Amino acid sequence: MPYIDPADLTLEQKASLLSGLGFWATKPIDEAGVPSIVLTDGPHGIRMQDGDADHLGINKSLPATCFPPAVAVGSSWDAEVAARVGAAVGREARAFGVCVVLGPGVNIKRSPLCGRNFEYYSEDPLISGVLGAAHVRAMQAEGPGASVKHFAVNNQETDRMQISADVDERTLREIYLPAFERVVTEARPATVMCSYNRINGVYAAESRWLLTDLLRTEWGFDGTVVSDWGAVGDRVAALAAGLDLEMPGTNGAVDRAVVQAVRAGDLDEAVVDEAARRVLALTGLAAPATGGLDVDGHHALARELAADCAVLLKNDNEALPITPRTRRIAVIGEFATSPRFQGGGSSRINPTRVDTALKAIQDLAEAHGQTVTYARGFGADDSGEQALREQAVRTAGDTDIAVIFAGADHESEGFDRDTLDLPADQVELIRAVAAAAPRTVVVLSNGGVLSLEGWHDDVDAILEGWLLGQAGGGAVADLLFGVVNPSGHLAETIPLRLQDNPSHLNFPGEQRHVRYGEGVMVGYRYYETAGVPVRYPFGHGLSYTAFESRDLSVTLTGDDTATVSVTVTNTGERAGKHVVQVYVATDAGPVRRPARELRAFTKIALEPGQSRVVELDLDRRAFAYYDIELGGWTVAAGEYTVQIGENAARVVAEQTITLPGDTVTKVLSLDSTVSDWFSHPAVGPALMGALAEGMTEEQARQSEQSADMLQMIASMPMRRFLNFTGIQIGPEALTEMIELSRSPSLAT
Amino acid sequence: MPYIDPADLTLEQKASLLSGLGFWATKPIDEAGVPSIVLTDGPHGIRMQDGDADHLGINKSLPATCFPPAVAVGSSWDAEVAARVGAAVGREARAFGVCVVLGPGVNIKRSPLCGRNFEYYSEDPLISGVLGAAHVRAMQAEGPGASVKHFAVNNQETDRMQISADVDERTLREIYLPAFERVVTEARPATVMCSYNRINGVYAAESRWLLTDLLRTEWGFDGTVVSDWGAVGDRVAALAAGLDLEMPGTNGAVDRAVVQAVRAGDLDEAVVDEAARRVLALTGLAAPATGGLDVDGHHALARELAADCAVLLKNDNEALPITPRTRRIAVIGEFATSPRFQGGGSSRINPTRVDTALKAIQDLAEAHGQTVTYARGFGADDSGEQALREQAVRTAGDTDIAVIFAGADHESEGFDRDTLDLPADQVELIRAVAAAAPRTVVVLSNGGVLSLEGWHDDVDAILEGWLLGQAGGGAVADLLFGVVNPSGHLAETIPLRLQDNPSHLNFPGEQRHVRYGEGVMVGYRYYETAGVPVRYPFGHGLSYTAFESRDLSVTLTGDDTATVSVTVTNTGERAGKHVVQVYVATDAGPVRRPARELRAFTKIALEPGQSRVVELDLDRRAFAYYDIELGGWTVAAGEYTVQIGENAARVVAEQTITLPGDTVTKVLSLDSTVSDWFSHPAVGPALMGALAEGMTEEQARQSEQSADMLQMIASMPMRRFLNFTGIQIGPEALTEMIELSRSPSLAT
Repeated sequence: MPYIDPADLTLEQKASLLSGLGFWATKPIDEAGVPSIVLTDGPHGIRMQDGDADHLGINKSLPATCFPPAVAVGSSWDAEVAARVGAAVGREARAFGVCVVLGPGVNIKRSPLCGRNFEYYSEDPLISGVLGAAHVRAMQAEGPGASVKHFAVNNQETDRMQISADVDERTLREIYLPAFERVVTEARPATVMCSYNRINGVYAAESRWLLTDLLRTEWGFDGTVVSDWGAVGDRVAALAAGLDLEMPGTNGAVDRAVVQAVRAGDLDEAVVDEAARRVLALTGLAAPATGGLDVDGHHALARELAADCAVLLKNDNEALPITPRTRRIAVIGEFATSPRFQGGGSSRINPTRVDTALKAIQDLAEAHGQTVTYARGFGADDSGEQALREQAVRTAGDTDIAVIFAGADHESEGFDRDTLDLPADQVELIRAVAAAAPRTVVVLSNGGVLSLEGWHDDVDAILEGWLLGQAGGGAVADLLFGVVNPSGHLAETIPLRLQDNPSHLNFPGEQRHVRYGEGVMVGYRYYETAGVPVRYPFGHGLSYTAFESRDLSVTLTGDDTATVSVTVTNTGERAGKHVVQVYVATDAGPVRRPARELRAFTKIALEPGQSRVVELDLDRRAFAYYDIELGGWTVAAGEYTVQIGENAARVVAEQTITLPGDTVTKVLSLDSTVSDWFSHPAVGPALMGALAEGMTEEQARQSEQSADMLQMIASMPMRRFLNFTGIQIGPEALTEMIELSRSPSLAT
Repeated sequence: MPYIDPADLTLEQKASLLSGLGFWATKPIDEAGVPSIVLTDGPHGIRMQDGDADHLGINKSLPATCFPPAVAVGSSWDAEVAARVGAAVGREARAFGVCVVLGPGVNIKRSPLCGRNFEYYSEDPLISGVLGAAHVRAMQAEGPGASVKHFAVNNQETDRMQISADVDERTLREIYLPAFERVVTEARPATVMCSYNRINGVYAAESRWLLTDLLRTEWGFDGTVVSDWGAVGDRVAALAAGLDLEMPGTNGAVDRAVVQAVRAGDLDEAVVDEAARRVLALTGLAAPATGGLDVDGHHALARELAADCAVLLKNDNEALPITPRTRRIAVIGEFATSPRFQGGGSSRINPTRVDTALKAIQDLAEAHGQTVTYARGFGADDSGEQALREQAVRTAGDTDIAVIFAGADHESEGFDRDTLDLPADQVELIRAVAAAAPRTVVVLSNGGVLSLEGWHDDVDAILEGWLLGQAGGGAVADLLFGVVNPSGHLAETIPLRLQDNPSHLNFPGEQRHVRYGEGVMVGYRYYETAGVPVRYPFGHGLSYTAFESRDLSVTLTGDDTATVSVTVTNTGERAGKHVVQVYVATDAGPVRRPARELRAFTKIALEPGQSRVVELDLDRRAFAYYDIELGGWTVAAGEYTVQIGENAARVVAEQTITLPGDTVTKVLSLDSTVSDWFSHPAVGPALMGALAEGMTEEQARQSEQSADMLQMIASMPMRRFLNFTGIQIGPEALTEMIELSRSPSLAT
């Protein structure tokens, strides 16, 4: 497409570019050679609508491959998995002629109840950012543009169109924004999608701080900002804030409002020009549909990737893998034949085909002459429940192992869940089957975390399958039989009880406000810091082999960067993949730090007996906190313990390094506290001298007498301290000390 | 004093009234006949300075009776106890010629670590307000004025001069303000003392919302607002906000600033007039010292009141009371001879005399010929620790019962605590003695909550003495020997671990801000709602007799008021006092309600076998929540369960009533949500009809097909919903429905 200068378009033409042509396309300007481009829902597949607009995911779209949703990809802890999903989706987009695929979603799983958690990667911003960036990079390498979403702090579905996420800046910077920051700065997505909600009272769509100051000025984003579908209330305010493209279109009504605002002098035409320029740039992605979907290849890929995502939570009594010695296998549960492999709403894909676990198990069992029996187990109405359960128990009693396919009820965009519990009939089924079968394995299908309360201890093994996409059934069979060695790890904590979650009493908020009362203490950051026991910690995941990490060595590569080297050995008898998890723990600085934070990770494959030295870089951000007084990322002087975690709760090796900290300038004033004055490296000693001179003998005697005194006055502003005590320090001496404080010193 | 019109004073004279004469007095204007009046620290005794000013409580003041501090009075759950303390302090104030006694403190114990908790009553606003009001009323009836403090949201000492308590309005209204509101509206204190801290970024001293809109306009306060000592930064801003009297004085510097501001036109002279009028009114309290302190009478009173405050936490194996059958008593612990009976800082009283528990026990034991031995047990430096412990164990081994006097280290205004643990040497002592003695009783002295971890299960009985004032030693002896039957109940939860407290990771804040992340879920409201187990719940307290509550009957006395009637019987064999605790539990309304909230209480005395019908009123506020959208207290339609609690965790009787709820007007607009529109009693049905007309057949089919749809669009503003779906409803029909919404309906 040739370069089109917004200056060559009329105001009406420019305004027309700033909202959609119906639901799924931008408006063309035929006379100016501006094409219309198609945007569709994603991100783990293409939801290309054929016919009537339907953003709610009710109608079937054109068949496309349903790859593992983000909840599964997050558990892979593998950027390669995210990238291969992204690339494949990019290829399918090209086949359909789709130019922008909406996604990935990198919102943080603040509460396990968020109805859309299955579309998000993790409770941790590093995982979310690394996987999101890998997805975007790989997809965009295929041609189509991405739309990282939902920007920002959209962590619940309840009242999502009006709720104000009330959250302090350190928490925003350290928890809710870094994944977006990484995707934007590292992967340069074509678009960023603003979210529905408000942030501290301001709609994301109308937040200039968010869409311009932060996104463009600080992060250097030069793509297009698009609204979530229906997120714009005041079009002119949103445009002024930096929202370029409103979707879906509203038959030109908002375009007229924009024109009117410019004519009335309420909106600078330059703002319209700039937004139009960005939408024009986006239409540069226009490309014809290439056709030729690789249905078989992509289905096989979906199966391969899914197997990297499932998490083996528990495996007692060598229940798994199922070896040829196991002759009789009972498969139980409706999900073995009617798999739950994706959630509802805008990300719902019409799959090209669907693997059932039962069929895949039968295929693998056949090779070794194992027999497979099936019982539905649950899913009937109340009256038939007991009969199904009894049949399942009979089936299970007569086998060597029972594999139960259980999981959550329907989950969807648009509403939050209200429980972490497995439906009661399934709990009863599991307990009854486990009592009857020699070995019991539970395979879970769920988009959001399930508590394992009430049945966890009854079964031998648990495979957390999340939602694995259309080939999940095959992938699960591969894992159960050891064709693939499980390598997924939890990207979110499984708590013992819902009420243990730090957001519990502040979720989903009330009266249009949700208080982010837990601050940065989200997920494992909370559980580890507060010492709250969990069922399975963040980072947990078992394998059929074993790994050992040794020879940890942390080397400073600068004042605030380091390299971590650790040797990992596969000490078991099967090939497998291991995730190296690097956490940093510190008390440095003036803010409450989480007990530890994930700062680097990678996944490596090792043959039995094989060793590998893994090197990972810790950048400045790995040690920094966001200082709201200095208004920036700050590394405080102090000790930092670099930890290799088997998971967030279990450290297997650690080394402590000392960082000098940033050099910062904290200019003192008479409003600074006595403690600020005394602790200033240059001013403190000067003040001590001045005070000694300024005190009467009686004052000196008093100040020595009481050990409490300094603590009591520490937070007093200097001006009041001098008033209050009547200690005399001349104005010249004070001015001199304030001048002295302008010299930089180390942050502590 | 004759009425003096501010208009008759010069601007300089008026300004001079607005700051103190030094630390402890207002400025006189001799030529106008305006006297100087004396203010002193309180509130559980008079800290009358003789000589040099000393707000930090370092120098000894004139001897006065040290009554039980608020931490103890709170545990009495008895307005009569608070009133008798207040009246006695009032009499002593008169004796000294003190016109205003600073206190009581009615701040909420948000964190058990707050260093000043010993000066506050409770984690519950009802107890704090009822006891604070009783104290003020009784004291002021004696002549002197009170100064309810620290207004407001001053819940920590750390950084108290600068910290901003970041807290939402519902939490302010329901938790942190009601005690002040009750004291102001029911007891009309002469003064209110503004606190040091900021609230949502604004200094209390400079908050017009706090000092004028809320305090004067809403609550009708017509007394004087005085600053906490040194709380004023910007005198002119504080004056404009409603702060009348700055304390202490600063040699006229701020008076000149006030004059200057008026002359420069930056401050309306009427503001100065009004503040001067209020200070003049305050000087009407001027009264000469009457002398004649009733030292003996007040000491006896202090002993009587203290015995009503201590809480018997545990009493296994009938360890208490100590009967004449117990022949040999070992008294162990340094606090038996050097009692801790008050905290440090501005409330520290120079007592007229001090009872030691050892002496009081000896006196009571003598009557029955019991022998008392004593061992110090702890308190030496590290090297002597073991010897003291071994000696104590030997002493304990040779007796029938060991009574250990343990407790917290020095606690004071000015800094927060950093642990709930008893010092390690005392824990070791308790365990060692308990292993050696046939029976072990622990008596605790502490201003803030102690965890009982590490030794609770080793001992038979625990008497929580808090800080009991100068006669606490005698009171404890009375309780141990059953001369008085324990009747104190916890006014704050004893958690298992510090980290179980809901403020834990948000206390004491960082970088000048403390996030009140737990909202209204403070103390038992949190533990009961989140299901977090505690060591001893709020409201817990044992007696040497037993009580039974039956025949609960709740009668509506209006749309939002009720009377509770319950019959209480002393089923044991001793006279005793019982606290009737009435909680209300509800899910009604759009906000998250705590599991239950204390809404009424009273303490009654019953002879053995005696029954009494107790009637308590539940006013409108007992059922209301603060609605931030309506901007007021609201009673929602729904069910309310009125519960009689043995404590906050154990309900012994309950009855559910249904309230119609307030009639409110929620006018709809196109920005109201779809759910607001549908749920409006009048508009909902009209909308259903209009929608049915406005939908295409295809839309109607779709809307029926998906059960998720309504949930997904529920939070969509109506304007966007119409845009988004393309459903056609005429503007006239919409306007008509909006008009319809102006008719009042019930709050839900």
